[in-house]
Amino acid sequence: MEQRLNEIVRSIAPLDERAMELARSRLDRLTKPPGSLGRLEEVAVQVAGIMGDPRPKISRKVVFVLAADHGVVAEGVSPYPQVVTAQMVANFVRGGAAINVLARRAGADVVVADLGVAAREYLPAAGFLAQPVRPGTRNFVREDAMSRAEALQAIFAGYELASRTVTPRTSLIGLGEMGIGNTTASSAIVAALLGCDAGEVVGPGTGLDADGVRRKAEVVERSLRSRAPDPEDPLDVLAKVGGFEIAGLVGVALAAAERRLPILVDGFISGAAALVAARLAPALQQYLIASHCSAEPGHRAVLRALGLRPLLDLSLRLGEGTGAALAMPLVEAAVAILDEMATFEEAGVSDRG
Amino acid sequence: MEQRLNEIVRSIAPLDERAMELARSRLDRLTKPPGSLGRLEEVAVQVAGIMGDPRPKISRKVVFVLAADHGVVAEGVSPYPQVVTAQMVANFVRGGAAINVLARRAGADVVVADLGVAAREYLPAAGFLAQPVRPGTRNFVREDAMSRAEALQAIFAGYELASRTVTPRTSLIGLGEMGIGNTTASSAIVAALLGCDAGEVVGPGTGLDADGVRRKAEVVERSLRSRAPDPEDPLDVLAKVGGFEIAGLVGVALAAAERRLPILVDGFISGAAALVAARLAPALQQYLIASHCSAEPGHRAVLRALGLRPLLDLSLRLGEGTGAALAMPLVEAAVAILDEMATFEEAGVSDRG
Repeated sequence: MEQRLNEIVRSIAPLDERAMELARSRLDRLTKPPGSLGRLEEVAVQVAGIMGDPRPKISRKVVFVLAADHGVVAEGVSPYPQVVTAQMVANFVRGGAAINVLARRAGADVVVADLGVAAREYLPAAGFLAQPVRPGTRNFVREDAMSRAEALQAIFAGYELASRTVTPRTSLIGLGEMGIGNTTASSAIVAALLGCDAGEVVGPGTGLDADGVRRKAEVVERSLRSRAPDPEDPLDVLAKVGGFEIAGLVGVALAAAERRLPILVDGFISGAAALVAARLAPALQQYLIASHCSAEPGHRAVLRALGLRPLLDLSLRLGEGTGAALAMPLVEAAVAILDEMATFEEAGVSDRG
Repeated sequence: MEQRLNEIVRSIAPLDERAMELARSRLDRLTKPPGSLGRLEEVAVQVAGIMGDPRPKISRKVVFVLAADHGVVAEGVSPYPQVVTAQMVANFVRGGAAINVLARRAGADVVVADLGVAAREYLPAAGFLAQPVRPGTRNFVREDAMSRAEALQAIFAGYELASRTVTPRTSLIGLGEMGIGNTTASSAIVAALLGCDAGEVVGPGTGLDADGVRRKAEVVERSLRSRAPDPEDPLDVLAKVGGFEIAGLVGVALAAAERRLPILVDGFISGAAALVAARLAPALQQYLIASHCSAEPGHRAVLRALGLRPLLDLSLRLGEGTGAALAMPLVEAAVAILDEMATFEEAGVSDRG
């Protein structure tokens, strides 16, 4: 299985420099002061490089919302009961969650998938993809969250889901997730990979008070001491302190980059997945676009490590892919600028003296 | 005329507290941790208060792009020739400018108006509203940019344009502008009203180098010394160092607030107009939503003074209303969250323990 992963990693190409150069040169001839559309121009050039097209078009957009449960909730790291993961999958399928509303507004499809939800009796009968590894990870304070084989299984599950969902018209991918306890797993992954203290990355998640945050940081710290994941081996980190939905998102990101599609990272949890993916496949890093900066403190560390500057600053801390859906219109706007604006010559506007 | 202005100012109502309370209480019952949609929730509550409706809907959206010229360009404060103002009006009318592309993506109408363009022979024959006060302000290093009567005339021109354009279906207004030299006028307005040094607010505008910025700051400083506008009298500031398109935007903002419509402020220049409007009509301040934080240093001072936190951070420095158009989908998303998401009860999702 690791060999197959290595093949996927090798298949991810660097960005197309020629397309980027052509995009840059066109942007400078459009009727605006050079660079005056700031980050939008950078995103337009990046998307040109990703798609290998100096005037790319965005058509179908998909937000993947992967759900799974976490054994570490036994440590009291979330104010919500575990059953909420399954209940929210039902809410996604019925279209009543925030990601449904925001994806609808952005004109994006929502693809919901079960990578390992615990309260299976609460899952709806249909309307989502299912590739569960196990009904939740093990409590990683006491034992590894999953085996290395299970981590690979979850990565391939995400990879296959994305490969089956992505059509030739798909041109933008958003990463989203649901899993009670998954900010704890993400904190552990990020602290392990970046070598920071638990206290630097742990935050309130869905709404812990100061005492709760302290206890959560202790849980992460104890886990990292006893699990001792190898920071040089992203698969080891993912297996020991990760989650199935996070591993699944690694697979979605790999599939997207392999197909030369831009990847909109949502918040802290999908950021942790993007970090693992970029450590496995360094070429993938240039396919990432950060949608927003989460209120979770660990997210800043992730963005710094990935060299990403988010487009939105809205103090979101919901996940589900909500930030990714909100940023989709901005990526489309960037690409439309490149394609639809008039040049100085076309418009008969005088350039600088 | 000042009496009529005072009547408009008095007609601007405070936000509807009851609608805001109902909106807040609904947001807390939706299937997400309370407050987890951050600034979106604040915007939803603000729009509810502005429109006086706990579940407001956004239908027609309009970006006003007001154009005028500035006598102060004689001091060499812009790298572009003055004729570009008129040429860009033609570009707006043909639909080739950035604001056309971005407004189209946002589903917003663009209303272009001439408040005092200089190179009138370059203006297109039709496709824009015309209410020019004079073909450009006077050079305010040497004399007042306009008389107090002309400042009022330009405010009313904007007010009337907006009043005629806004239909009962219109629910969101964006402020935009075009005018070679108008970052210099805006810097002078902001420095005068906020009592800061020219050096703190002056920036590169459309692309001055460091020497150019220094010269521009000197121009603003000299103007403020010789014009000595009264910081307690926003009309005096506007007349002495302002611009016709800026005054027009003050009128647009007054008309929007009078009709209980949310006002999306674009960047530095429309921010300067919003500051003047809020100084004339303090109740108007709560109708403002900041779309983005411009790369111009003076914009931060404006946002601080108005208590606004922008939704986007994209290093834009183009104007035209581009930031306002980019932020429109976010305001619509905020309102859609309030209206379309399921409550915990409706979705059968467990709330916190």
